[in-house]
Amino acid sequence: MRVLVSGGAGYIGSHTVIRLVEAGHDVVVVDDFSNAKPTVVGRLEALTGTSVPVHSFDLTDVDKTEHLFANETIDAVIHFAGFKAVGESVAKPLDYYQNNLDSTFSLLRAMRRHDVRTLVFSSSATVYGAEPRLPMTEDLPTSATNPYGWTKVMIEQVLTDVAASDDRLRIAALRYFNPVGAHVSGDIGEDPSGIPNNLMPFVAQVAVGRREKLSVFGDDYDTPDGTGVRDYIHVDDLAAGHVAALDRISAGTTPMSIWNLGTGQGVSVLEVIKAFERASGRPIPYEIAPRRAGDIAASYADPSRANSELGWYATKTIDDMCADTWRWQSKNPNGYPDA
Amino acid sequence: MRVLVSGGAGYIGSHTVIRLVEAGHDVVVVDDFSNAKPTVVGRLEALTGTSVPVHSFDLTDVDKTEHLFANETIDAVIHFAGFKAVGESVAKPLDYYQNNLDSTFSLLRAMRRHDVRTLVFSSSATVYGAEPRLPMTEDLPTSATNPYGWTKVMIEQVLTDVAASDDRLRIAALRYFNPVGAHVSGDIGEDPSGIPNNLMPFVAQVAVGRREKLSVFGDDYDTPDGTGVRDYIHVDDLAAGHVAALDRISAGTTPMSIWNLGTGQGVSVLEVIKAFERASGRPIPYEIAPRRAGDIAASYADPSRANSELGWYATKTIDDMCADTWRWQSKNPNGYPDA
Repeated sequence: MRVLVSGGAGYIGSHTVIRLVEAGHDVVVVDDFSNAKPTVVGRLEALTGTSVPVHSFDLTDVDKTEHLFANETIDAVIHFAGFKAVGESVAKPLDYYQNNLDSTFSLLRAMRRHDVRTLVFSSSATVYGAEPRLPMTEDLPTSATNPYGWTKVMIEQVLTDVAASDDRLRIAALRYFNPVGAHVSGDIGEDPSGIPNNLMPFVAQVAVGRREKLSVFGDDYDTPDGTGVRDYIHVDDLAAGHVAALDRISAGTTPMSIWNLGTGQGVSVLEVIKAFERASGRPIPYEIAPRRAGDIAASYADPSRANSELGWYATKTIDDMCADTWRWQSKNPNGYPDA
Repeated sequence: MRVLVSGGAGYIGSHTVIRLVEAGHDVVVVDDFSNAKPTVVGRLEALTGTSVPVHSFDLTDVDKTEHLFANETIDAVIHFAGFKAVGESVAKPLDYYQNNLDSTFSLLRAMRRHDVRTLVFSSSATVYGAEPRLPMTEDLPTSATNPYGWTKVMIEQVLTDVAASDDRLRIAALRYFNPVGAHVSGDIGEDPSGIPNNLMPFVAQVAVGRREKLSVFGDDYDTPDGTGVRDYIHVDDLAAGHVAALDRISAGTTPMSIWNLGTGQGVSVLEVIKAFERASGRPIPYEIAPRRAGDIAASYADPSRANSELGWYATKTIDDMCADTWRWQSKNPNGYPDA
C-alpha cells in the first residue's frame, strides 16, 4: 500500500515510516515541521534506503490537503499530526482543539472525496481519564483531564460516528501507553523542544549533561516504591503495532476498531532511573518534588485485545528502551541538527 | 449592550432577538439561512419597531467572521447557529462535527481578536445522555447518544477549557429542555423544513391539516401513561432566560456558568395531544408506533440553579404553549413565506 503518514517527521511517526518501508509499503509524509526538524528526513532516507516524499504544510489548510490527495496516490492514512503538550493545552485550549480537530476533519474530507477508506489514528491512554480501573481495557469509559486529552477523546468519537455512517470505512484508533526508546541505530529518536514534559527524555538529557538533575513528582503514591507507575513501550514496538493494525483493518470488514498498545507491565519512576543508570553507566541525580496536578498513581494496559486480534506483542524490555534511548541521546546530545 | 445573535433568524434565535430588543439591547444578526427563511427578518422588525442588521453568511468562514467583528460594534455574543437534526447527524456526522465545532472556533477567535468577552451558548439537555438521573441537575456527567448531542457536549468542554484559560471571559452554556410555542402575536414561530422531528410542530401540522395523523413512539415506557415524558418550555420563557443569563454573566466575575432552562415539570405525549386539542378545538388523530432508538422514557430539569442565580422562572403552562403554537400555525399554515 501507499500510506500517507501525517506527522511522519515526528517521534512516533518517523519510527513508523521505517517499519512501513521494512514491511514493503510505500510512504508519503505530510508534516508542517512545527514540532519536528527537517533533518530527520535525510536520516529516514539513509536508514530505509528509499526516497521519502515529504509535503510540508499544515493539514488544517483544506486546499493544500485537497491538492495533496489530488496529486498523490494514497491507499491509506496513518494520522499522527497534532499538538501534544499537556501543559500548553491548558494555557491555549482553543489552539489545541482547533488544530487537532480541524486537521482531522480536513483529512477525513479529503479521504472521502478521493475514496480513501483506511485510517489509523494516533490516540492515547490519556482517554481513560483521571481514575481508570487497572489494567485498562478498551471498553472503559473515556474522559480526560486536560484539553490535549479531550482532543483525543473527541476525535475518537468523531471517528466512531463517521465509521458508523459508512460501513466501507476501515478505521482504527490506537491507544498508546508511554512511548520511549529510539531506533536501534541511534539515528532517529525523540527530540522534544524546550524542557521535556516526559520522564525518559528528561532522564536522557540529565545523563548526557544537558540538565543538572531530575525532579521526581511524588514519592507517596499508592505504588510499590511510592513513585508513579507507567506502561513504557518501546517506540519500535509501537511502530510495529501501527503496521499490524493497518494490515488487519485493510484485510477485515470492521469499520471501527480500538486497540491498546502497551506492554501490560507497570514500571516505576525509580525503576526507570535505575535502568537508565545501568544502560548509560552514568548516575542520574534526582530529587523528590511534589506531585503534579493531574498525574495519576498508576497506568498500565491490558494489551490482550491487540495481542489476540493483531498478533502483535510488545517485545522490548525497559533495559532495551533505556539502551536505545541512550544510544540516540549520546550520538545526538542536542537532538537533530538544524540544517 | 450590542449583542451579536448567531442563528438569529432561527426558531429560538428569533424569539430571543425580540426579548433582547424589549430589554433595551441593540441586536446584530448573523445567519446563513440554511435552516431559516429571510422573511422572518421583516416580521422581527415589524414586531420590535426597530431595524435589525442581518449578515448573511456561514460562520465557519473565518474571513467573513473576522470582517463582521472588524466592522460592527459587538459587546456580547449569543451563539445559536448550528445544525440540529438528530437523525441527519447520524447519517452525516462529519458535517455536523465540522459545522458546529468550526463555527464555534471561528466565533471564539474573532471574539479574542476583538476583545469581546461575553458569550451565551445554546446547549441542550441532550448532554445528560442516555440514562440521566431525574430531575436533571447541572452537575450530572455529560454524554450523548448521537453526533448532534456530542457536538453540544464537545462545545461545552471547549468553552469550559477556554474560560479556565482566561479569567476575563464570561461564558454561559444554557441547557434547554424541549422548546415549544411561538410569539404571542402568532407572527414568529417554529418552521421546520421537511417532516418535523419534534412532537409539537408535528401535532400543529396535523391540527392544521398538513399531515394526516401523529405517530406516538412507544406507549410502554415506565411513565404514568406509558408515553414519553418531556419538560416542554415556552420559547418565550427560554428567550427571557437568555437575556437573564446575559445580564448575569456581564455583571459577574465567573468565567464559566452552566444553567438548565426548563420548567421542572414533565408532560407526556398524550397530555400534549389533549392540550393541543383543547387549544385548537380540533381532534389530533394518532396511532401508537414502536419506540424510536435513542429515545429515553422521561426527561425533566431541576431548574433551581437558574431560578436562584438568574431570578428566572418559566412562567407559561402547556396550555399557553399549545395556544401560542396554534395561533402561529393557523396564521401560517405553511410556515414563513418564501419571499
